[in-house]
Amino acid sequence: MSRISPLSGFPEWLPRQRIIESHVVNTLRRVFELHGYAEIETRAVEPLEQLLAKGETSKEVYLLRRLQEESETSDRDTLGLHFDLTVPFARYIIENAGKLNFPFKRYQIQKVWRGERPQDGRFREFLQADIDVVADGELPDHYEAEMPIVIASAFEELRKVGMPPVKIHVNNRKLNQGFYLGIGIGDVEGTLRTIDKLDKLGPEATAELLIQENGATSQQAEAALALAAISGSDASFVDRVRALGVSHPMLEEGLDELARLVEAAARRVPGVVEANLKIARGLDYYTGSVYETTLVGHEGLGSICSGGRYDSLASDGKRTYPGVGISVGVTRLVSRLISENLVAPTRATPTAVLVAVWDEQERPRSEAIAASLRARGIPTDVSPTAAKLGRQIRFADRIGIPYVWFPGRDGASDEVKDIRSGEQVEAGPDAWAPPAEDLHVRVVAVE
Amino acid sequence: MSRISPLSGFPEWLPRQRIIESHVVNTLRRVFELHGYAEIETRAVEPLEQLLAKGETSKEVYLLRRLQEESETSDRDTLGLHFDLTVPFARYIIENAGKLNFPFKRYQIQKVWRGERPQDGRFREFLQADIDVVADGELPDHYEAEMPIVIASAFEELRKVGMPPVKIHVNNRKLNQGFYLGIGIGDVEGTLRTIDKLDKLGPEATAELLIQENGATSQQAEAALALAAISGSDASFVDRVRALGVSHPMLEEGLDELARLVEAAARRVPGVVEANLKIARGLDYYTGSVYETTLVGHEGLGSICSGGRYDSLASDGKRTYPGVGISVGVTRLVSRLISENLVAPTRATPTAVLVAVWDEQERPRSEAIAASLRARGIPTDVSPTAAKLGRQIRFADRIGIPYVWFPGRDGASDEVKDIRSGEQVEAGPDAWAPPAEDLHVRVVAVE
Repeated sequence: MSRISPLSGFPEWLPRQRIIESHVVNTLRRVFELHGYAEIETRAVEPLEQLLAKGETSKEVYLLRRLQEESETSDRDTLGLHFDLTVPFARYIIENAGKLNFPFKRYQIQKVWRGERPQDGRFREFLQADIDVVADGELPDHYEAEMPIVIASAFEELRKVGMPPVKIHVNNRKLNQGFYLGIGIGDVEGTLRTIDKLDKLGPEATAELLIQENGATSQQAEAALALAAISGSDASFVDRVRALGVSHPMLEEGLDELARLVEAAARRVPGVVEANLKIARGLDYYTGSVYETTLVGHEGLGSICSGGRYDSLASDGKRTYPGVGISVGVTRLVSRLISENLVAPTRATPTAVLVAVWDEQERPRSEAIAASLRARGIPTDVSPTAAKLGRQIRFADRIGIPYVWFPGRDGASDEVKDIRSGEQVEAGPDAWAPPAEDLHVRVVAVE
Repeated sequence: MSRISPLSGFPEWLPRQRIIESHVVNTLRRVFELHGYAEIETRAVEPLEQLLAKGETSKEVYLLRRLQEESETSDRDTLGLHFDLTVPFARYIIENAGKLNFPFKRYQIQKVWRGERPQDGRFREFLQADIDVVADGELPDHYEAEMPIVIASAFEELRKVGMPPVKIHVNNRKLNQGFYLGIGIGDVEGTLRTIDKLDKLGPEATAELLIQENGATSQQAEAALALAAISGSDASFVDRVRALGVSHPMLEEGLDELARLVEAAARRVPGVVEANLKIARGLDYYTGSVYETTLVGHEGLGSICSGGRYDSLASDGKRTYPGVGISVGVTRLVSRLISENLVAPTRATPTAVLVAVWDEQERPRSEAIAASLRARGIPTDVSPTAAKLGRQIRFADRIGIPYVWFPGRDGASDEVKDIRSGEQVEAGPDAWAPPAEDLHVRVVAVE
């Protein structure tokens, strides 16, 4: 085999690193299911015309063709790999609407692909974990609060194994749009795109851009920046917005929704969710709440979990399905946990016990011991060879298997040795169990 | 969104069907880990030249290009989707050899893609679950027995939820090759390919083909067919081969290996594994044991689990890594379990309890009850709306949520109702739990 090398942007993990990724995925899955989300998976491909329906991501799509394809395929029939889990979910909803119960709460954990230039935290193939709630007709606002609460609960679980805390920043499209309309700014979308650059450009350059590109007066620019400067983790931000003296019915609606969201989050997951009125990414297509999540101390990584509300997540022309969703960038998060050595597995394998083999003739006896242990849920392997005992123990030690089992010889009892402490005790394969903390490989914070 | 329709060959499941698929995957995962296999995942893409290295599957490969790709990509740089998990695993071994401990036992559960014409049990995108053991240098034979034993253990677990029993058919390349050489047949590969057609063609047409295409005499053809007629689930098949009066050192080696495999399997998983000397598929590239698995009563579905031993699974020119592996066709199996209605989930959602909402003002109280139940591991949802109680109960009933929780009013205790039996009892959110069989959605046999 020639030319073996990693492909930039297509990360792969070693077994010990995959244990970390699995732990993250399993934690998300468990918390999503505790909150009533059912899992679906969608196919990896969608017709190109569906992938391009929103226009802006066209450059990122990977197209497929079969090596032996006879003729040019029309655009209608060209397939591309999905670049997120929202487009396929919207299609799935339309395709299966008659068989689903609404409001439908689903989670979906799958790889997605984007032909982007790879950089730190940005990949060509990566794992996303999404939750969405979609309704047939009306989608109650309380689901907009549910998104960051579920995510905060999942991340709280991951903090226990060494993940840094997160801050979930929330804003509301209606609030900004109403405010801009209230001060007479007409180019709402353009203004949102400019405000999105505030962190990068600073207030002065942003004000200039608002004036030059979005047709704002210097007073309007100043007011837009004053709004963007407001944040807070309780409803007191509402008074600070009111103090700017702008009034518009849509602003009131947005303030009310965002205040209720922040209060609900403060009750359930205090200290995690924060109203932040400069959050503008995605506000051009979201219609209500938007979410961005930073890993505290790793803000440069970008958002590890984003989403928002779409009044029209999906539509078949007759019915419209509003939805709200949020998506965890699992690969981005895991790659940081690994590269910064924040968390580690207790061993590099699921195996808790290695049964030694005295002699190849006696392998069936070692296999029978292993079968007894496995029948009681203890992950067990049998030594690859009947090598000298020292070599068998070293094999266990290298991958971190904590216990080596010695079948008794000449009528003696079996014994099991904790190869970390050296402690060795008599044991029977139908009764002995490792302490709970050694039964399964665990993921723990690196001190 | 226009033109919403399923894509032939790209199956997708409804939530209740995905619960069945997840149960199959989780069972495989658990049994693999109990046997000491560590998980890896590989990227979905490989360079085209690697995918084509074995030649014969070229027509099935999906190639990738970026929509906005500037120039024609050379063959060296063209990427394709993997069509199995063996090619990427072999590449992963070479790439990471220095960081792995050998013998390395890994499992891998991922989608693969083949641009084939879809038909019953044959898909363009499907899920595979593979285990392999790979060594650096020598791979002990006992791992060839381990493959069908692990798989049989996993399928035994799945029988408990209604999967039909399986028969794992095993053969050994050395046995057939040694026999053919012993009777003077020179075209071993061609003979194997012809024997592979025996079930389809019947013995007479097969004998004719052996004579016409593989240069066999009618006596040689007869002997080859006599060998192919032998099968058995204990080592007695060896005597039946010996009775054919052929001798060759490679035949002896093959007989010995296959007899030991069948005996090991009969000890651990009696009645599942059977030596079957007509199994020839893959014998052109496997070098020792080969496996094919049929679902009893569904033989027409084809093999649901196949594999074998490669003396050179991977090689970097200097070192050679022998391996043995087996691959479960998860999608083929699950699609049959679903289409024949053999197994079913106990409900269509993970949710065990729906907390009712009397009034939108009282939603925070219902949310607090849900949080208490979730903190004790009980999957809980809160009613979407404060609709009339009948409607809230119907919402639970439609997706099979077994319990509805009524927050107490005016100082009364909370109550919880089993909506299947109608039984309603007082309950506290810090103490009540559903019976174990209702806590999580389960998968059960359809009677």
